[in-house]
Amino acid sequence: MKTVYITRREHFNAAHKLWRPDWSEEKNDEVFGKCSNKNWHGHNFYIFVTVKGKPSDDTGFVINLKDLSKIMKEHVVEALDHKNLNLDVPFMAGILASTENLAIKIWEQIEEPIKEAGGELVKIKLEETENNYVEYFGGNEPF
Amino acid sequence: MKTVYITRREHFNAAHKLWRPDWSEEKNDEVFGKCSNKNWHGHNFYIFVTVKGKPSDDTGFVINLKDLSKIMKEHVVEALDHKNLNLDVPFMAGILASTENLAIKIWEQIEEPIKEAGGELVKIKLEETENNYVEYFGGNEPF
Amino acid sequence: MKTVYITRREHFNAAHKLWRPDWSEEKNDEVFGKCSNKNWHGHNFYIFVTVKGKPSDDTGFVINLKDLSKIMKEHVVEALDHKNLNLDVPFMAGILASTENLAIKIWEQIEEPIKEAGGELVKIKLEETENNYVEYFGGNEPF
Amino acid sequence: MKTVYITRREHFNAAHKLWRPDWSEEKNDEVFGKCSNKNWHGHNFYIFVTVKGKPSDDTGFVINLKDLSKIMKEHVVEALDHKNLNLDVPFMAGILASTENLAIKIWEQIEEPIKEAGGELVKIKLEETENNYVEYFGGNEPF
Amino acid sequence: MKTVYITRREHFNAAHKLWRPDWSEEKNDEVFGKCSNKNWHGHNFYIFVTVKGKPSDDTGFVINLKDLSKIMKEHVVEALDHKNLNLDVPFMAGILASTENLAIKIWEQIEEPIKEAGGELVKIKLEETENNYVEYFGGNEPF
Amino acid sequence: MKTVYITRREHFNAAHKLWRPDWSEEKNDEVFGKCSNKNWHGHNFYIFVTVKGKPSDDTGFVINLKDLSKIMKEHVVEALDHKNLNLDVPFMAGILASTENLAIKIWEQIEEPIKEAGGELVKIKLEETENNYVEYFGGNEPF
Repeated sequence: MKTVYITRREHFNAAHKLWRPDWSEEKNDEVFGKCSNKNWHGHNFYIFVTVKGKPSDDTGFVINLKDLSKIMKEHVVEALDHKNLNLDVPFMAGILASTENLAIKIWEQIEEPIKEAGGELVKIKLEETENNYVEYFGGNEPF
Repeated sequence: MKTVYITRREHFNAAHKLWRPDWSEEKNDEVFGKCSNKNWHGHNFYIFVTVKGKPSDDTGFVINLKDLSKIMKEHVVEALDHKNLNLDVPFMAGILASTENLAIKIWEQIEEPIKEAGGELVKIKLEETENNYVEYFGGNEPF
Repeated sequence: MKTVYITRREHFNAAHKLWRPDWSEEKNDEVFGKCSNKNWHGHNFYIFVTVKGKPSDDTGFVINLKDLSKIMKEHVVEALDHKNLNLDVPFMAGILASTENLAIKIWEQIEEPIKEAGGELVKIKLEETENNYVEYFGGNEPF
Repeated sequence: MKTVYITRREHFNAAHKLWRPDWSEEKNDEVFGKCSNKNWHGHNFYIFVTVKGKPSDDTGFVINLKDLSKIMKEHVVEALDHKNLNLDVPFMAGILASTENLAIKIWEQIEEPIKEAGGELVKIKLEETENNYVEYFGGNEPF
Repeated sequence: MKTVYITRREHFNAAHKLWRPDWSEEKNDEVFGKCSNKNWHGHNFYIFVTVKGKPSDDTGFVINLKDLSKIMKEHVVEALDHKNLNLDVPFMAGILASTENLAIKIWEQIEEPIKEAGGELVKIKLEETENNYVEYFGGNEPF
Repeated sequence: MKTVYITRREHFNAAHKLWRPDWSEEKNDEVFGKCSNKNWHGHNFYIFVTVKGKPSDDTGFVINLKDLSKIMKEHVVEALDHKNLNLDVPFMAGILASTENLAIKIWEQIEEPIKEAGGELVKIKLEETENNYVEYFGGNEPF
């Protein structure tokens, strides 16, 4: 049996803004544009988590998707769904709520739980709109 | 030539919450659930506007999509994109920011401009997530 | 306040076959083609349920989507998800498992519960593949 | 048994331009914008054809989708796929190649064959891009 | 000219179940959940096949998509469409019908025919639902 | 901070044909099939551009998507949207208008502008239809 990659999608709807309190309103607007609107805006985010491994002889699974989905719901969806990324999320405190930074922090929440479930997290894809998304491989650079 | 319906899609990303200040936090939570999160949440909204009419002999158009798109951008996208539906939008002031109410108010913004451009607005579809949307026919009930 | 239509999507994955035991294998194959494969095949079905009404002054809702989703999960998803439409579903017993018939029977399961929740069911859309779907208006013919 | 609507999707990729030879280049550009580019442009079109009827007691079908698909392939896809709508399509000769006009002409090609197959054509939806589409009900106005 | 990757999508609708005959019903249910339903369930599967190579000076192609599509239809779609993955598919006999295992076995069916057509198979993506898919690189681990 | 990949999608609608003037019509048809239709055909193309880098401490961005979008619009969309790939595009002159070749030439247009904006272009995905796309990593072979 050989290495296979399996991916699970979950989603959450959240508010955020891109804003630095140590910058003037003009500077925030110049850099972040309409994303700096002080009263927030929001998105339907889609999070894709990829785990790699050899399918088990017992189950044919790299990881049981019930387990992976449960981890994603507990550590990502519950923390972020219908929340304000700047105000309501402990693991984003003090961090600019860019999609890039959010992907890195989500990785930190689920890497260990996935390992405990017998899987190896290798990729997160975080889609903010149908026109933009980020991918994070734990800092690795496959290409 | 016979009646044809033409639809244009635009999108906007906005924050909102479902919350009544005259209700307790418990009552708000009971009715609106996680949509009542006091620090807001948000969505990628898709707005579909349908105009009906007979294709022009001159152009083959019911309405020029450049004109329809311009109307939607000026009256809907500019007003709602990267905004807070409860705080930033004059035409939503004092109104519960449900998808239903938002669709009705959007109709009011664009019905007249579309008429001035020679078209007849007959339907708005407002998609909040891939799992829910509302349709509004100006109060008419085609089915 | 004027009439608005609101739609909720849920999904279920099911097996079925199109097969009449009173027909020969040749006749079944001639009419139903590969859909008559005796060992079944299956689909990811998407069910869209539309309720119409006037938005409530209290909530801005035609119907609370939490309630609509709960009705759909109890009466449709629980009955059909990861099931065999021909063998496992009491309300489909003795009925050809075409998408058309399935839509009609789903309507019968949810019309009353939706009415009890204060809503009026007006449309079901049942998508079998990205290339085909049926719509059912309770037997009405809006067009 | 009650009336159900069934829809089949097919697609075709075609070139066209919006251009009137009796207008100047300036006038064409003013009205049709970049759609008037003299060397053509093109789209992936999706055509959705809806037939209504009562499901047959024998088959559970409003119309056999194999038959509907065959009609669409013979009369629409074969005529339009990888073609130039202005130059290669007899039934579009002398007609402005707008999406509206194309939908009307497609209706004329398939209404009779669908009737011969026992079905009643009630709607065509023709999608030009993910941001615009037209609907045609044979000239009827359901809303 | 430099290496380019080209991908073709095809689809098939199939029934399956996750079930081990050497396990009790309880054990099957505990591990495989509703996927173990004894009367089967099913999915609309999408298969994406990626071939890499340098575009030919003669054709601009890495591989002619007509050839790639033909290989996929002969070796994958014909074998799996409207079939039961556990009962009807020789190359899946005796193998747990997980998405992971199915991807590995599909690779074995098409690697050689693609090579004979002058291409190099480098990736299979097999989508079971919009919420989960597997990727297989022939056992390689690009990340 | 670690390496993140960010992707922006834009689209353009264009006409083209696959045709070699030094080949007979028969030979063109044999190799390119209906894509060789002499009067052209067309597509809605989607272009995805991926930039990698470490999120800036100042902005949380790998690259400001406003800048990336502007580069794509100036160098790709303006050059290709509502154009004929064979006739209207200087950087495609004399080159077979296959999706593979187009991806390679698009890379050449935007690699330098992205570098000047502080980013590193690592991948282009060019989608011609929902059934086929190419990926280009600047000639690199990540898998």
